[in-house]
Amino acid sequence: VLEGLKEEMMNVAKELRKAVFESRPIIIRHHWDADGVCGGVALEKALVDLVEKTNADSEAKYYLVKRKVSRAPFYELEDVVKDLDEALEDVEKHGDKIPLVVLVDNGSGSEDVPAIRQFLAFGADVITIDHHYPDEEVDSYLLHHVNPYKVGGDSNYTSGVLCVEIARMVNPEIDGLELLAAVSIVGDRSEGEVEKYIELSGCTREELYDIGLALEFEGFYLRFRSASGIVHEILGFGRKDRQRKLVDMLAGYAKKAIEEQLDTAMAGVKVQTLPNGIALAAFDVENYAKRFTFPPPGKLTGEIHDRLKREHPKIVTIGYGPDFAVIRSEGVELDIPRFVKELQQEVPNAGVEGGGHLVVGSVKFIPAKRKDVLAKLAAKIGSL
Amino acid sequence: VLEGLKEEMMNVAKELRKAVFESRPIIIRHHWDADGVCGGVALEKALVDLVEKTNADSEAKYYLVKRKVSRAPFYELEDVVKDLDEALEDVEKHGDKIPLVVLVDNGSGSEDVPAIRQFLAFGADVITIDHHYPDEEVDSYLLHHVNPYKVGGDSNYTSGVLCVEIARMVNPEIDGLELLAAVSIVGDRSEGEVEKYIELSGCTREELYDIGLALEFEGFYLRFRSASGIVHEILGFGRKDRQRKLVDMLAGYAKKAIEEQLDTAMAGVKVQTLPNGIALAAFDVENYAKRFTFPPPGKLTGEIHDRLKREHPKIVTIGYGPDFAVIRSEGVELDIPRFVKELQQEVPNAGVEGGGHLVVGSVKFIPAKRKDVLAKLAAKIGSL
Amino acid sequence: VLEGLKEEMMNVAKELRKAVFESRPIIIRHHWDADGVCGGVALEKALVDLVEKTNADSEAKYYLVKRKVSRAPFYELEDVVKDLDEALEDVEKHGDKIPLVVLVDNGSGSEDVPAIRQFLAFGADVITIDHHYPDEEVDSYLLHHVNPYKVGGDSNYTSGVLCVEIARMVNPEIDGLELLAAVSIVGDRSEGEVEKYIELSGCTREELYDIGLALEFEGFYLRFRSASGIVHEILGFGRKDRQRKLVDMLAGYAKKAIEEQLDTAMAGVKVQTLPNGIALAAFDVENYAKRFTFPPPGKLTGEIHDRLKREHPKIVTIGYGPDFAVIRSEGVELDIPRFVKELQQEVPNAGVEGGGHLVVGSVKFIPAKRKDVLAKLAAKIGSL
Repeated sequence: VLEGLKEEMMNVAKELRKAVFESRPIIIRHHWDADGVCGGVALEKALVDLVEKTNADSEAKYYLVKRKVSRAPFYELEDVVKDLDEALEDVEKHGDKIPLVVLVDNGSGSEDVPAIRQFLAFGADVITIDHHYPDEEVDSYLLHHVNPYKVGGDSNYTSGVLCVEIARMVNPEIDGLELLAAVSIVGDRSEGEVEKYIELSGCTREELYDIGLALEFEGFYLRFRSASGIVHEILGFGRKDRQRKLVDMLAGYAKKAIEEQLDTAMAGVKVQTLPNGIALAAFDVENYAKRFTFPPPGKLTGEIHDRLKREHPKIVTIGYGPDFAVIRSEGVELDIPRFVKELQQEVPNAGVEGGGHLVVGSVKFIPAKRKDVLAKLAAKIGSL
Repeated sequence: VLEGLKEEMMNVAKELRKAVFESRPIIIRHHWDADGVCGGVALEKALVDLVEKTNADSEAKYYLVKRKVSRAPFYELEDVVKDLDEALEDVEKHGDKIPLVVLVDNGSGSEDVPAIRQFLAFGADVITIDHHYPDEEVDSYLLHHVNPYKVGGDSNYTSGVLCVEIARMVNPEIDGLELLAAVSIVGDRSEGEVEKYIELSGCTREELYDIGLALEFEGFYLRFRSASGIVHEILGFGRKDRQRKLVDMLAGYAKKAIEEQLDTAMAGVKVQTLPNGIALAAFDVENYAKRFTFPPPGKLTGEIHDRLKREHPKIVTIGYGPDFAVIRSEGVELDIPRFVKELQQEVPNAGVEGGGHLVVGSVKFIPAKRKDVLAKLAAKIGSL
Repeated sequence: VLEGLKEEMMNVAKELRKAVFESRPIIIRHHWDADGVCGGVALEKALVDLVEKTNADSEAKYYLVKRKVSRAPFYELEDVVKDLDEALEDVEKHGDKIPLVVLVDNGSGSEDVPAIRQFLAFGADVITIDHHYPDEEVDSYLLHHVNPYKVGGDSNYTSGVLCVEIARMVNPEIDGLELLAAVSIVGDRSEGEVEKYIELSGCTREELYDIGLALEFEGFYLRFRSASGIVHEILGFGRKDRQRKLVDMLAGYAKKAIEEQLDTAMAGVKVQTLPNGIALAAFDVENYAKRFTFPPPGKLTGEIHDRLKREHPKIVTIGYGPDFAVIRSEGVELDIPRFVKELQQEVPNAGVEGGGHLVVGSVKFIPAKRKDVLAKLAAKIGSL
């Protein structure tokens, strides 16, 4: 699969190098989870180093390469207007060029289109490096799109892996990128060929898991800050002794927080076995979890699911709030995008939206229709 | 009416020019809707150009003219402490003067008084350019107050129109201001004499409506950012081809968002005909609309109202949340400020507050008293 | 007590002076209430003046002394990642040293430990100056810890008093610090020996109360801004005539806001007399108070309590929301930390957390368990 993507990755690398040589600003916008951060940092490292070596202005690295964090799993309008506003200000005040935008672990869905189109209207170019199932429309707006699904692969080829490979093409002189690929693999629970990156990293799965957990714990509290100083240290680009200490401490707090939230949450989980033998677990996020606390609803639902699936080989776990539901599944042939389309028909005027991967995803709706949407969703799972 | 306001507008223009010549910073604080933005940008354009032509420091335009956006329909304490803090820092660090503050499409109500008084305490002067029904107390704190009600006019004379006229007095060399006046007219649905600005703009009502809608759609996601780069482009101060493309795209997304929200919302609207023949439509914003999504509650209630009034010549539409109600009316002699005063008496200790125009406004209350307040409000409408 | 603390205060003063002479940045992180602000400003004044007199760079005071405001009563992870990110950026861009962190009116509890440990991991040193009952674990992470409980004192020795004494050791040339100590005493209702600071200030209790109230009213709207320009003016470091005017205005608005909130709130207060003669007042904050309005829930509960205790010599007042309860008491031997520990046992999986002083504090829990937690809490008070 990586072989098949090689040409497009080379194209992206060429475009990025061109931007550096032309002093065109590059915005790296990535999802806030471990995979997104690893991908974003891989590109950041390669590009900043290239700018340092080729640009006479020692400050250039600060305004030519900007890594930014998206909280949503797509390029939100709130994010693009901010990026655009800052870019236009730099054009006006400093004579900068309109940036090249790279979307990492995001940027392949229809929800990304409005933001992408808006930046294009001002002369930007947008590149997507993602491993989510790609929407067809989005390609007509992208300069390049690196995605394993385009060459018969799947989401096991993480954004972290893709970006590490591209980063090496951009700048072969950066050490320590193997770790980024490996953390993204363990963080996204990827399997298959890509597991070789774990070996290459020289770390155990546990160590990689802890690094990913430390990234997400810190990222949760950092919110919209990219905080390269902290993040690079966690990812081993600083002092090695400090990295270990920091990862142990942060992963330790993260595990403790997960345990505590699990304790309160499990009391609010109701599991029923459907006639078709699938266990359906429902969890009331709003009433059984603390707000604004790590782990956030999606991750907490995942942790509950992981605990439940030990006893239930076929299970779907749904964590619901007033206007959303997070879905995790195991041993079941789920197709969330299809569910979303059907729900839009079957529960009209409920504002149903959603997406994600096939077996992991989320659904949004208006509060008045929560009961209807969740009932229909349960019925669908019962008739699989 | 504009003739009657001429002298006061000249006074404001003189004060603004004086500030520029004395290098005194000017803060333009305007409401975030299309009218407020058009008014604020008209002044910004005139003043920035004047600074560029008269100030030797090429950076002066950035620190002498600051356009800022208010989300609330009045000058909030959160806003003034921010402005004041920044102003005092500029005084301390750069020896700047205490600013001249211009409130646009805000600044004429009693709710503005605490913020205005606070800035005055630090030596600022405050000017209001507004077309809302003016409170009497506020005038004792204002250096100038341009308001059509002061000369027998009404709110059809938008803030956009008033600011465009003042901008021309400040600096006659700015092109493209007619469009701002026209967009504000269509955006605020103004009628009468001011409709001449529509003709002067050379645009159709539809084009002007789309520009206003694009401003509000973008403004919703920009939140507190004034984002002059983007906003000027939408208002035609950039490349004309880009303006059209951008407006079409943004207005298109806005219309789609409105349609989608209307679909879910209409299912939550209950219409009853009161004994006096007035149709009363009630809409549960919290449960039948998506949160943090364009259009926001006030605008959504307005869109519902526009749809309903086609069938009901006499109608009041109320969009309510846990602690607020938005009111729109047609063919009915509403007097919201009077209602608010009566509700404060009739539902004591409910924390009733509110205001707005006569026939368009909003009411706030504590959640425990929602039912009482809404029932009394309905009774009042029933006895009109 | 102050005599007993003298040595540790001298150590802190020495450390602060050393940081100034070595151009090591100092971060002062203080709680946002009147006591916290007075403490933070005392240190800020002393240190900024020292930097001005000893550092050749006239800009040094801006980057070497940073006063920051915490909204929570402990050093939150959101706060530390921000401080750390900015510190690492200054290290990277300007070659700054890793800062010395001073926690004021916070920093002595177990909730502070994760944040403190994280800064330590990057080479910072942390000093706590606090008057809350100290946790034992925290000391192993602190360079110094000034706390009256360590020498047999109690919370009557406010953070403001402690910081004023230290500020004088750091820099004896600052006038006007007596006022800060006195405002903190009245703001925190301290009694005993420390009341001498009131006399020293030359102000009446009413004047001091008004200054403290003005600080908290302004602080509420300033949110995370330290706004030294405004705050110094309120505390008398600017023009005296302006100070009086400003304090009168802000305290006036604050009192009006408190009265208005009290009117709506009292209708939602239920008082019952328990068999043991203690009056228990319960108040539904969510439904009987306005959101995002001064006074916030904790302060509003305190105001209700103050009004009720005139009639009830033995009373506990509880203001509760969906996931929290604020507790105030009078004439009752409350031990909130013990209650919290017991509730964790008696209402398992409720996510109970909390703390504060012995007789003033708060409890957090998950919404699903509110009823159970509050019932158990009432039972505990009934069996005192």
